[in-house]
Amino acid sequence: MTTPRRAPGGFPVVGIVGGGQLARMCAGPAAELGLTLSVLAEGPDASAALVVPSSPVGEHTDAEAVLAFAAACDVVTFDHEHVPADVLAELVASGVPVHPTPEALRFAQDKLAMRERLTALGVPCPRWVRADTAADVEAFAAQVGWPLVAKTPRGGYDGKGVAVVASAAELTGWLARAQEAGTGLLLEEKVPFRRELAVLLARSPSGQAAAWPVVETVQTDGICTEVLAPAPDLDPDLSARAVEAGLRVAGELGVTGVLAVELFEVVGADGEASFVVNELAMRPHNSGHWTMDGAVTGQFEQHLRAVLDLPLGDPTPRAPWTVMANVLGGEYPDLYPTYRHVMARDPGAKVHLYGKDVRPGRKIGHVNVSGDDLADLRERAGHAADYIQGVVTE
Amino acid sequence: MTTPRRAPGGFPVVGIVGGGQLARMCAGPAAELGLTLSVLAEGPDASAALVVPSSPVGEHTDAEAVLAFAAACDVVTFDHEHVPADVLAELVASGVPVHPTPEALRFAQDKLAMRERLTALGVPCPRWVRADTAADVEAFAAQVGWPLVAKTPRGGYDGKGVAVVASAAELTGWLARAQEAGTGLLLEEKVPFRRELAVLLARSPSGQAAAWPVVETVQTDGICTEVLAPAPDLDPDLSARAVEAGLRVAGELGVTGVLAVELFEVVGADGEASFVVNELAMRPHNSGHWTMDGAVTGQFEQHLRAVLDLPLGDPTPRAPWTVMANVLGGEYPDLYPTYRHVMARDPGAKVHLYGKDVRPGRKIGHVNVSGDDLADLRERAGHAADYIQGVVTE
Repeated sequence: MTTPRRAPGGFPVVGIVGGGQLARMCAGPAAELGLTLSVLAEGPDASAALVVPSSPVGEHTDAEAVLAFAAACDVVTFDHEHVPADVLAELVASGVPVHPTPEALRFAQDKLAMRERLTALGVPCPRWVRADTAADVEAFAAQVGWPLVAKTPRGGYDGKGVAVVASAAELTGWLARAQEAGTGLLLEEKVPFRRELAVLLARSPSGQAAAWPVVETVQTDGICTEVLAPAPDLDPDLSARAVEAGLRVAGELGVTGVLAVELFEVVGADGEASFVVNELAMRPHNSGHWTMDGAVTGQFEQHLRAVLDLPLGDPTPRAPWTVMANVLGGEYPDLYPTYRHVMARDPGAKVHLYGKDVRPGRKIGHVNVSGDDLADLRERAGHAADYIQGVVTE
Repeated sequence: MTTPRRAPGGFPVVGIVGGGQLARMCAGPAAELGLTLSVLAEGPDASAALVVPSSPVGEHTDAEAVLAFAAACDVVTFDHEHVPADVLAELVASGVPVHPTPEALRFAQDKLAMRERLTALGVPCPRWVRADTAADVEAFAAQVGWPLVAKTPRGGYDGKGVAVVASAAELTGWLARAQEAGTGLLLEEKVPFRRELAVLLARSPSGQAAAWPVVETVQTDGICTEVLAPAPDLDPDLSARAVEAGLRVAGELGVTGVLAVELFEVVGADGEASFVVNELAMRPHNSGHWTMDGAVTGQFEQHLRAVLDLPLGDPTPRAPWTVMANVLGGEYPDLYPTYRHVMARDPGAKVHLYGKDVRPGRKIGHVNVSGDDLADLRERAGHAADYIQGVVTE
């Protein structure tokens, strides 16, 4: 079936452009809420296409495919941020509600636009500049020092499109491509952060918003590998200011659906902790996978409620601590035997797999563990994720 | 798509015969576990068919349809207990693992067989007898008094096939049909119970078993309308004996998958509480819907793990109390507006809907609420379920 079959009772169809794991993880909550999903999938074996009956195949860059898909939906949202502006414009013109809107989504698609807007709002950011030439790079480095961080404004994810560079020469290729595309590069100071945090919240078109507690995220080679919820030993005042900034960004940018605000926690010369914003994502986010088992309302349910302008659910944690560890592809394509082992070793581990082919370093699943003892939970989640991917540490 | 598309990594396909809400509620856990579901559905709009990509349409009484369906599955299980013995026998002969096995399932399909077996095992039952004639009925009534409970041995559910009768004359029609079918009727004493309880557990083919806490179930007109988990003020010794009986029944009968043992709690002349077994069900059960939000491992995930002989998950509750209230069909076919109201009034209510047409008295969903204050939870769950079905009590 490639067109959505409506449930009786007046329940809407939610269309998701993109068939990755974020769309897939909406399937369970949608079924429970009585909603119908439809996914515009990259192929018949896309992660979400394996579990959603209505999964027409089409490219998110193909306006005709996107419009035909959207015509059967009551609202359209996204698995990723890569739908081009012209396709988004046609989608909106077709009359279907789109959440997040293209106006908001622009600030997640274009990191230069995001930096301009957040700076105008007074939201703390690393020092940054747009660079078009090597001279721009040298001038910025003279201010903030080497190394610095260069980012392609569009299309990056999971550490792709981000480079830490120690000389302008390293950016020769990037600058040439940016000049050709007319986009410029985003340069940022390399922030000497203590750790990374994330604010996750949802906002509905009516303006209702609900935030989960601030979490700590652990990145390995640019990929989120572990999340501690809530962030341990976080100053309550800093936590409140971070959530307030997230809610203000959501409101000012008109975000609808889930918003993730990735932060660096920095410690000043006076020993005071503060934060700067690293990235924005306007969709369910890796930093929120813990909520599937660790909060009364998980991020996938909340995203569906938000884009439908339904009242939001309670984001309160269900346990003192939840730890999420990502499962990355390793050397072994067959996960089923290692997964059995993890289930036997840890009956409380919540294993989530995405139905994806194993490729080294690819996100193929995650494990959540909730409880009272943070150190124990980290050990358990980490062991489970490692073992599934074929890393045996003991 | 009517054949299951396998996920990579060696993950199996679980086939479920029957496309009702029990099959539907396996969809979310299956997706998270990385498994593929396939459902033999009553029609394209069956509850589970709306959310499972592989949902061929076929009758559970049609051996050809069941065998063709099962050929694409690694294990077959059931949404209900109505698959005929001859179809089950062909299914087993085809070589696909079937859980629960026909040998075990017989004791859930045939209440006379169940009473015989439990009595032989020494598991407490109401006094009972097989009746084929009005004289049999009179003789049993002389022992246990009027009224008594008559049950058709096969095919009953939700109060159907059960009658409380005050004279043999009321059973004239049932006796004639039972005689024609050669099945006899099951007669039971009408147990003067204090309340109804249920033991829910899962058992795997390897013999691993895990039980959730004993719950109290509230029936209205023979339909479960509310579950309190765990059962309030239950004597710990009685609870332990009930769980032990459930585990013993599961082991002795060779049950695989989820087993629900419905109990009456009775109080003796000495004031001591004890129990007798009312019914068995070998599948996820209404008395276990609370586990979806209220336990570390929900019954639908556990059933999938059990029938695949995967290690079982932790059945520990996530909160001191969880209350489940069933949503029954009322007068209004459009649920979406009332559901919005419930979400707005109670952000912590977990609403589960089955994608079914509203018919008066039909189970169309349920609501779970977890927390510390049982009285408050009962009010919240009850209000939410009432309001969705169109009953406004305040």
